[in-house]
Amino acid sequence: MENVIKDPKLAEKGKKRIEWARRHMPVLQKIREEYAAERPLEGVRVVACLHVTVETANLLSTLTAGGAEIAVAGSNPLSTQDDVAAALAEDGMRVYAFHGENDQEYYDCINRALEIRPHVTLDDGADTIATIHRDRPDLAAEILGGCEETTTGVIRLRALADAGKLLYPVIAVNDAETKMMFDNRYGTGQSTIHGIMNATNFLFAGKTVVVGGYGWCGRGLATRARGMGANVIVVEVEPRKALEAAMDGFRVMSMTAAAPLGDLFVTVTGNVSVIREEHVELMKDQAIVANSGHFNVEIDIPALEEMASGVSEVQENVLEYKMADGRRIYLLAEGRLINLAAAYGHPPEVMDMSFANQALSVRYIAENGRRLDRKVYSVPSEIDKRVAALKLAAMGIEIESLTPEQDKYLHSWETGT
Amino acid sequence: MENVIKDPKLAEKGKKRIEWARRHMPVLQKIREEYAAERPLEGVRVVACLHVTVETANLLSTLTAGGAEIAVAGSNPLSTQDDVAAALAEDGMRVYAFHGENDQEYYDCINRALEIRPHVTLDDGADTIATIHRDRPDLAAEILGGCEETTTGVIRLRALADAGKLLYPVIAVNDAETKMMFDNRYGTGQSTIHGIMNATNFLFAGKTVVVGGYGWCGRGLATRARGMGANVIVVEVEPRKALEAAMDGFRVMSMTAAAPLGDLFVTVTGNVSVIREEHVELMKDQAIVANSGHFNVEIDIPALEEMASGVSEVQENVLEYKMADGRRIYLLAEGRLINLAAAYGHPPEVMDMSFANQALSVRYIAENGRRLDRKVYSVPSEIDKRVAALKLAAMGIEIESLTPEQDKYLHSWETGT
Amino acid sequence: MENVIKDPKLAEKGKKRIEWARRHMPVLQKIREEYAAERPLEGVRVVACLHVTVETANLLSTLTAGGAEIAVAGSNPLSTQDDVAAALAEDGMRVYAFHGENDQEYYDCINRALEIRPHVTLDDGADTIATIHRDRPDLAAEILGGCEETTTGVIRLRALADAGKLLYPVIAVNDAETKMMFDNRYGTGQSTIHGIMNATNFLFAGKTVVVGGYGWCGRGLATRARGMGANVIVVEVEPRKALEAAMDGFRVMSMTAAAPLGDLFVTVTGNVSVIREEHVELMKDQAIVANSGHFNVEIDIPALEEMASGVSEVQENVLEYKMADGRRIYLLAEGRLINLAAAYGHPPEVMDMSFANQALSVRYIAENGRRLDRKVYSVPSEIDKRVAALKLAAMGIEIESLTPEQDKYLHSWETGT
Amino acid sequence: MENVIKDPKLAEKGKKRIEWARRHMPVLQKIREEYAAERPLEGVRVVACLHVTVETANLLSTLTAGGAEIAVAGSNPLSTQDDVAAALAEDGMRVYAFHGENDQEYYDCINRALEIRPHVTLDDGADTIATIHRDRPDLAAEILGGCEETTTGVIRLRALADAGKLLYPVIAVNDAETKMMFDNRYGTGQSTIHGIMNATNFLFAGKTVVVGGYGWCGRGLATRARGMGANVIVVEVEPRKALEAAMDGFRVMSMTAAAPLGDLFVTVTGNVSVIREEHVELMKDQAIVANSGHFNVEIDIPALEEMASGVSEVQENVLEYKMADGRRIYLLAEGRLINLAAAYGHPPEVMDMSFANQALSVRYIAENGRRLDRKVYSVPSEIDKRVAALKLAAMGIEIESLTPEQDKYLHSWETGT
Repeated sequence: MENVIKDPKLAEKGKKRIEWARRHMPVLQKIREEYAAERPLEGVRVVACLHVTVETANLLSTLTAGGAEIAVAGSNPLSTQDDVAAALAEDGMRVYAFHGENDQEYYDCINRALEIRPHVTLDDGADTIATIHRDRPDLAAEILGGCEETTTGVIRLRALADAGKLLYPVIAVNDAETKMMFDNRYGTGQSTIHGIMNATNFLFAGKTVVVGGYGWCGRGLATRARGMGANVIVVEVEPRKALEAAMDGFRVMSMTAAAPLGDLFVTVTGNVSVIREEHVELMKDQAIVANSGHFNVEIDIPALEEMASGVSEVQENVLEYKMADGRRIYLLAEGRLINLAAAYGHPPEVMDMSFANQALSVRYIAENGRRLDRKVYSVPSEIDKRVAALKLAAMGIEIESLTPEQDKYLHSWETGT
Repeated sequence: MENVIKDPKLAEKGKKRIEWARRHMPVLQKIREEYAAERPLEGVRVVACLHVTVETANLLSTLTAGGAEIAVAGSNPLSTQDDVAAALAEDGMRVYAFHGENDQEYYDCINRALEIRPHVTLDDGADTIATIHRDRPDLAAEILGGCEETTTGVIRLRALADAGKLLYPVIAVNDAETKMMFDNRYGTGQSTIHGIMNATNFLFAGKTVVVGGYGWCGRGLATRARGMGANVIVVEVEPRKALEAAMDGFRVMSMTAAAPLGDLFVTVTGNVSVIREEHVELMKDQAIVANSGHFNVEIDIPALEEMASGVSEVQENVLEYKMADGRRIYLLAEGRLINLAAAYGHPPEVMDMSFANQALSVRYIAENGRRLDRKVYSVPSEIDKRVAALKLAAMGIEIESLTPEQDKYLHSWETGT
Repeated sequence: MENVIKDPKLAEKGKKRIEWARRHMPVLQKIREEYAAERPLEGVRVVACLHVTVETANLLSTLTAGGAEIAVAGSNPLSTQDDVAAALAEDGMRVYAFHGENDQEYYDCINRALEIRPHVTLDDGADTIATIHRDRPDLAAEILGGCEETTTGVIRLRALADAGKLLYPVIAVNDAETKMMFDNRYGTGQSTIHGIMNATNFLFAGKTVVVGGYGWCGRGLATRARGMGANVIVVEVEPRKALEAAMDGFRVMSMTAAAPLGDLFVTVTGNVSVIREEHVELMKDQAIVANSGHFNVEIDIPALEEMASGVSEVQENVLEYKMADGRRIYLLAEGRLINLAAAYGHPPEVMDMSFANQALSVRYIAENGRRLDRKVYSVPSEIDKRVAALKLAAMGIEIESLTPEQDKYLHSWETGT
Repeated sequence: MENVIKDPKLAEKGKKRIEWARRHMPVLQKIREEYAAERPLEGVRVVACLHVTVETANLLSTLTAGGAEIAVAGSNPLSTQDDVAAALAEDGMRVYAFHGENDQEYYDCINRALEIRPHVTLDDGADTIATIHRDRPDLAAEILGGCEETTTGVIRLRALADAGKLLYPVIAVNDAETKMMFDNRYGTGQSTIHGIMNATNFLFAGKTVVVGGYGWCGRGLATRARGMGANVIVVEVEPRKALEAAMDGFRVMSMTAAAPLGDLFVTVTGNVSVIREEHVELMKDQAIVANSGHFNVEIDIPALEEMASGVSEVQENVLEYKMADGRRIYLLAEGRLINLAAAYGHPPEVMDMSFANQALSVRYIAENGRRLDRKVYSVPSEIDKRVAALKLAAMGIEIESLTPEQDKYLHSWETGT
């Protein structure tokens, strides 16, 4: 079965970059050594629909070290790093991914990957699972379980499970503390800033930045934007999160109220049409609009196109929409996740933890999948804690430990004032 | 039955201050109006063992407005504001609380309060519930339920429940998002800084501050200490929290490693003997040690006393322990929670939310207590969300709302890349 | 000549607190040892019109150690700490200062202090110098020079010098880097927050705080208010400072635009009528107004009084002005500097540097005053640098030093790309 | 005379990017309109030795609009953006600059630019002026004056002036408040972070970052690194700056003490050999070393090369030096300024102010140069203030203005307590 990649000659460059990332993923490296010794995934077929980056390459080689057989598809048309795809292919994996796929090509790639008839599916946005449920339910019988990496994907899977239609158990890797609180917050926070700087060389100091969503990604992004000197406005629908944003010192308001104030708008909600015609109508000339949520639906791009009297590319990743009244609205990376489209995605140090959860969850599924129900599961807490402990060790940090007296105190009720 | 208060003549001063706090507790005020109209607590006897502050006074008058009959004891020997106690007494409540109780007096006060034979107990540290379980189990039959306000108390109650010994249902008000994430973080954060400034006029800028614990209180305190210019070290036992502290830019290490570095040490762990002889041995001359956790057990004061060649009060709330080698260690407020002992405790704006949860939970117990098991319950999520929504309204903040399309999207799984 | 103090019996309490501060003023302590050995101020008569605080007490005893004879008056009617005044009197200084002086008493105190016919005047707001110029020009002949501690005072003195009317040389201690950048920024920043918390128990998190002025004091206050969780608006007249505030992430606007947005307004401008009737008209119900600039002229209090239908004290340091339309505006500490009126003023650690500059400048005047012109002088740069080096040593900080190669490089022009 | 550029076909891409920058440089745009109308530089020949970036292109076209004739050389071998060079050439300027010049080529380019016999020189690092002083003193007679953009260059020029050897007047554009406090702080701060992320995808959160130098660049970089979640150590030689860093909450120590602690080291001192063999000896395995100061002399690269048992490029802009003991030290961009070598340099919004000062200073020199001495001059304060006012207007910020009463107050001395 032939690979679908851009250019095999990019393999060498890819390998160098994968090696660089590997050096910053010590937890995954530790697990890889363990897997190489124990071979817990011998004979397990895995379809991985993930952003094809240097970090993902390290996850996949960890699984391979454990004995897994792997087929890879990209999880976003613009996020595949072609040199990495080439390197993975050269290493003998089946690879169906290239930068700049159109929608048809995107789903073709997923379908070709599914031809290995997986035991385990790895998703970043739930597109593989959705494809199986829609088009290939026949594959489900053989599948032990799946892993899902994103907030967006978990939302979709819970909807599926709530509707009673989920065909096999899934672990919500996204919801592990060592994933969600770190990758979503510190990873998305930094890399979104990075992508915006790459696309625009935007100076954050002195600007008003509107962040749509105050989940872990939004918290991270708002914090980093402020850390770069911006004045940040948060738009959120959940009252407790909105209140938290206010107490954290951000202005909180509706998108309609924020629209005329922002120099830059970034959506990270996992929801659809967060920025709509009614908001664009109110924006300043030269406002910049970007998305760092998983799908390119958070900005209503069709509306933008309909409103515009003209569209032109002012530089790579910057489209100018000219409004009838002369205002220019800039859309970055066609509304696709800016941190992957215009930068490298999350740094390896956080992906190290996320993918350690993935690697350990794949083993957990391989060993326990047959006993699980067709539900969305949390990452087992032992895995979550182990990842944290391994990471701290790798960072050279020694934490405090409980004395026997303290341990006892925490389990007693007698001592009071 | 006679009140036990310091001085009835302080009532007028107390009333003025209570009124000032009332103006900053709009959520509780809203509930009070509702209770006055509906009288849902008619005939309900409540024992409230809480810090007797201006904010507590507003909670109690809300319950009274709903028809409750109340007996109050302080929940800490040093936290009672005597003018508030006087004002409550003048308003007709039974009050057993004064600043500077000794241990015997402290428990006498609780026991006298229990003489009203409560239907509901309100605790801040679980001392009433512990007293009932230890000394007055006979009262349990009549009790519909209890509310607990603190992390420390919830730890004790879960230990009790785990041991199968809990005699009546308890609502962990502490764990409501609108309590824990706000009061513990923003309230303890600010008021601990305030108490330390009041006791010492300590300049935070340029100092090394060691925070023991990175729960919600610790996060708040570490953030505020940094916000005042300090360089903060976090000491924590749970790997995921320790990792979060590191990612938030704090140094993370064991207490032994931190001991020689700190200018100020503050414990907020809910645990015992967090600072021990072995740590004090390593501290710098003139290091300051304080506690903002619920009980005065977080610093091993008996050890400090044994180590010292002399002890003297250098000013109010500052005890100097002279070590044999000449070093001087300063202990603030006898290790009792510094934010209440040396300042006013949490500002009314956050207590507004915590006590709104309390007030609504008391009604919930009154209406549902007989149907609940002998377990530790969470605050019902409708109550939690309602408190957030009322608070945002009071702050004049209008948040975003979901469009029908968005609501549908969040419950679907079909739309992908 | 009799002292004018509140109560001599407060001396013991004052001494304890002075001793506590002394421990946190190691630079001044070092200078005191030097002065005790060298006696450079033998026979020098000094009038010190300063905030009578524990830190000031340590400055004065340093001068006394050097041989100076001292008369003290307070530099603000509300800032004298009566226990400190008593302690100084017991130590044999002439003291004319008590908390709560009216205007007449305030100037009487200054005039009585002047009866010692000073060689050197120390001012914090220039009131002594202004009194001499207005009422006692006869004293000028004997005066070697003066020191001025505040931005406000330096503004007055430069006006006087520009008008050609300055009668003797003055050193602008305020403008020393180790004074202005530290005391004004970190000292005023923290202590203003402290004063406001003491007066109101205001929760900063989630509030909008308007800071009038973005000089060193304003920068410090804005940074600290943000550090406590507030959303800060800066009002400034100088374009470069306004631009800096914007780049630092603050909102910048006119007071008229800020008036309807603020929960708390604090002026630190050194100017007059920064908050006027036209602004109060626009404020929200329950807005709080305070000043941390030197004089109580920054808020137009007469206007406030004229606008109000009623005035009442809601608690200590909080006056409520009831507007005709029902709105309540709270004025703190009668518009006097809130950090001294409601807290302890600047922490000793920063006053250590400010007063080290003072102590060394007094010696400089004593030794060089006759050779100086009737101008406003900067603190000699050797004094400024020495204070910084002494402070770093006291903090246990070892800084980098230039290698000979580096020193040469900084003085060469040849080496390029 | 032929241009020396990489590829004329890049012109179109360059023009698009220059246009994008132009939109974010409204102050310069305003001046360009003024210059086009008034033609104040008619017949003035300018040699500009600057980083050939999109922002520089906008400065040069502003000068051209005013009538100037221009020859451009790059001011750093790695900072020329070849598409910009091509665009400038196509616009008719003489351009001698390409990315990746060696030392010989670098000075050849400067010398060819000098063939137009300039009236004004613009420098970014003083290489043109140094070349004139060393090799072409004959040109000085015709030169009216020069402008210098950097701290490093100003240090060199003051050394030259102090030695009495400066051949013509120079304006230290770097020292304008609207340059130094903004470009050096906010520009270098952000763009250095950007360059490091581009070269390494380094996660700042949880890392220890050592910043060499706490001038305006260092302050900006330390603030931004902290804003991205790093724990920052500052190394500084000047006591007052070191003290300021400590009060700002950073750890301050010598480079020797910092060496074993850092994950990343960045120099921004304007000095030589800030990181030397003795420091590299102490660094952790995989420590990263970068420079953002003007010249590539801040890290002692020859020492690094001598120490290394092997050197290899692990990816673009990352050289690995393998130490004898197995440690790997990564040097970014060959020690050249990382913000230009690996990112776009300062964002246009700050260069807008810096180059507005340049543009107005060139006019000032053209009109007044003959009357100036052979000294280093400050930017006239009217220019500085005008730039700030224009920038605020462009940002839509309206600042407060003095009332007549306030203006009078600031110039009076009578009003006191």
